[in-house]
Amino acid sequence: MDRKKRKLESGDRQDDDRLRILDSFEGFKVKSVISENSRCKTAVIHGELDGKDAIVLLERKPFNLSNVSNYFTEETGLENTLKNDIYGTYDAYPPKVENAVKAVVIHPATEKHVQKYTDQERYIVHETPSLYEQVTLPLITSKQFSIQWVYNILEKKKEADRIVYEDTDPDTGFILLPDMKWDRTDTSALYLVAIVHKHNIKSLRDLDTGSLPLLQNILKKGLKAIQDTYDIPASKLNVYIHYQPSYYHFHVHFTNVKFEAPGFGADRAHLLADVINNIQLYGDFYKKKTLTFLVREQEDLYMKFKDAGYFDCSEEVSVEK
Amino acid sequence: MDRKKRKLESGDRQDDDRLRILDSFEGFKVKSVISENSRCKTAVIHGELDGKDAIVLLERKPFNLSNVSNYFTEETGLENTLKNDIYGTYDAYPPKVENAVKAVVIHPATEKHVQKYTDQERYIVHETPSLYEQVTLPLITSKQFSIQWVYNILEKKKEADRIVYEDTDPDTGFILLPDMKWDRTDTSALYLVAIVHKHNIKSLRDLDTGSLPLLQNILKKGLKAIQDTYDIPASKLNVYIHYQPSYYHFHVHFTNVKFEAPGFGADRAHLLADVINNIQLYGDFYKKKTLTFLVREQEDLYMKFKDAGYFDCSEEVSVEK
Repeated sequence: MDRKKRKLESGDRQDDDRLRILDSFEGFKVKSVISENSRCKTAVIHGELDGKDAIVLLERKPFNLSNVSNYFTEETGLENTLKNDIYGTYDAYPPKVENAVKAVVIHPATEKHVQKYTDQERYIVHETPSLYEQVTLPLITSKQFSIQWVYNILEKKKEADRIVYEDTDPDTGFILLPDMKWDRTDTSALYLVAIVHKHNIKSLRDLDTGSLPLLQNILKKGLKAIQDTYDIPASKLNVYIHYQPSYYHFHVHFTNVKFEAPGFGADRAHLLADVINNIQLYGDFYKKKTLTFLVREQEDLYMKFKDAGYFDCSEEVSVEK
Repeated sequence: MDRKKRKLESGDRQDDDRLRILDSFEGFKVKSVISENSRCKTAVIHGELDGKDAIVLLERKPFNLSNVSNYFTEETGLENTLKNDIYGTYDAYPPKVENAVKAVVIHPATEKHVQKYTDQERYIVHETPSLYEQVTLPLITSKQFSIQWVYNILEKKKEADRIVYEDTDPDTGFILLPDMKWDRTDTSALYLVAIVHKHNIKSLRDLDTGSLPLLQNILKKGLKAIQDTYDIPASKLNVYIHYQPSYYHFHVHFTNVKFEAPGFGADRAHLLADVINNIQLYGDFYKKKTLTFLVREQEDLYMKFKDAGYFDCSEEVSVEK
């Protein structure tokens, strides 16, 4: 049998595998849970089926609200778990038809699939000014994260057609344009970014009284540009800075309050109005402040804090005594 | 019949209503779906039971990952909905025990409850200290939700069996117990609340240097109790205060960093470690600070700010000049 024929046949066998449709999880061996999101009710399981790796993405379904009465019959059994005054908490068991779970099965799965769907451990860091000097700053300055793409935007070499608004002042000016995460049509998910023309403001840590004209200019003109362009008022917009940022050239995020933007958590987002107010009250606020953020175990910053022994005493540090 | 007796009897009748435990939704009439979140798989239904208004908060449960093999047996039926190469999409029907839906029943519910749980337009407010004095404080002191249920917990009249940890000190002590949003089994969705024994701390606005022993005690002992009880270290826990809070008796939220807790946004959550650090640096920080939060259009607070003309000039205010 010549190579080609053999290859074809093995190919055919593989195709047979690939076309297998399951009618239950019989024979499925669980190896580990590689990702989970309890708020979204999702989980990713790495397992084995027919001696080959498999990945299963599980997701609970939203409630079927077009037929919500289905849940509210004598068929839905209730088991009381808590009662206090007018509040009762129950485990409810709706009719079977309402219990379907979405399951995406990837089989056979490769190592790349496993990596792609594996969640990284995340750790809280409370970065004191001295930890910033000793751990974070050296990393930022040593490892020059390439931000050429930012300069391309500021110099109009790229994305010039996407610019929503520009103030060309070299000290207080900025370019406002859509974030890659926004489809640019659904304004309820509006997501714009203001990138400043001024260089060498690495992050929140570099802001002080001297930054106020820049910050106030971005807030005022950014909000006005969005009002004029998209007819969304200031009272419907979140305007904030990330710390740590994903790149160390100063920029500000503008998102619709209706949109649960990733990175709007209290462990990363700093409202621009708050930042301005803090600096107005205490000019050197961000030089003295302990700043809190999450690091992922595969990030350089996590390794640096680990090497510095931070996580050996994270509880004490977190108590900020 | 003298006042006292009548009062007692009406009190008893009321308690009977309040103590009714349901074993199914038989007799429940659906009026409308007043809120939904398909990403989080939650829905809030306004209905009627025994001729009284009722609100039901439905939430699909996170997957039970401590026993994930339960989902991967021949018991879990699969209905194929899509197949392409190595990717197969199915509707999965896990064993009944894995299909419980969390249902919080509020009955009898007041108009205020209906408002609280109805999806509404939301507006950002930047509350200066003077706006707090003129608008927010008068409202808090004039009217608020009954917090009898809080006192029931502190006095061990309710939920005593759910207490995870208690420090009985009247000034710095607190009771740590599971939030109603947590099913108490999936620690990746861990959500505990520390309710302080001390009365008359309404919110973040009341905190100053004198509050540091209380705040540091909650942070240190709360984290230790969670480490001891659930084996989750401080570096994996978000510890924060809400402003505005949902009730004006001081309490602190503890959630797993893996859990995208509602109300963890930068527009509401204030990390306890940050609060402590800010007060250590500037004792009167929360007396001077402009605080930002969202108000919903049916909340009294929104109406008060609207009547005060706040939204007629929200852009200027948000610029904080």
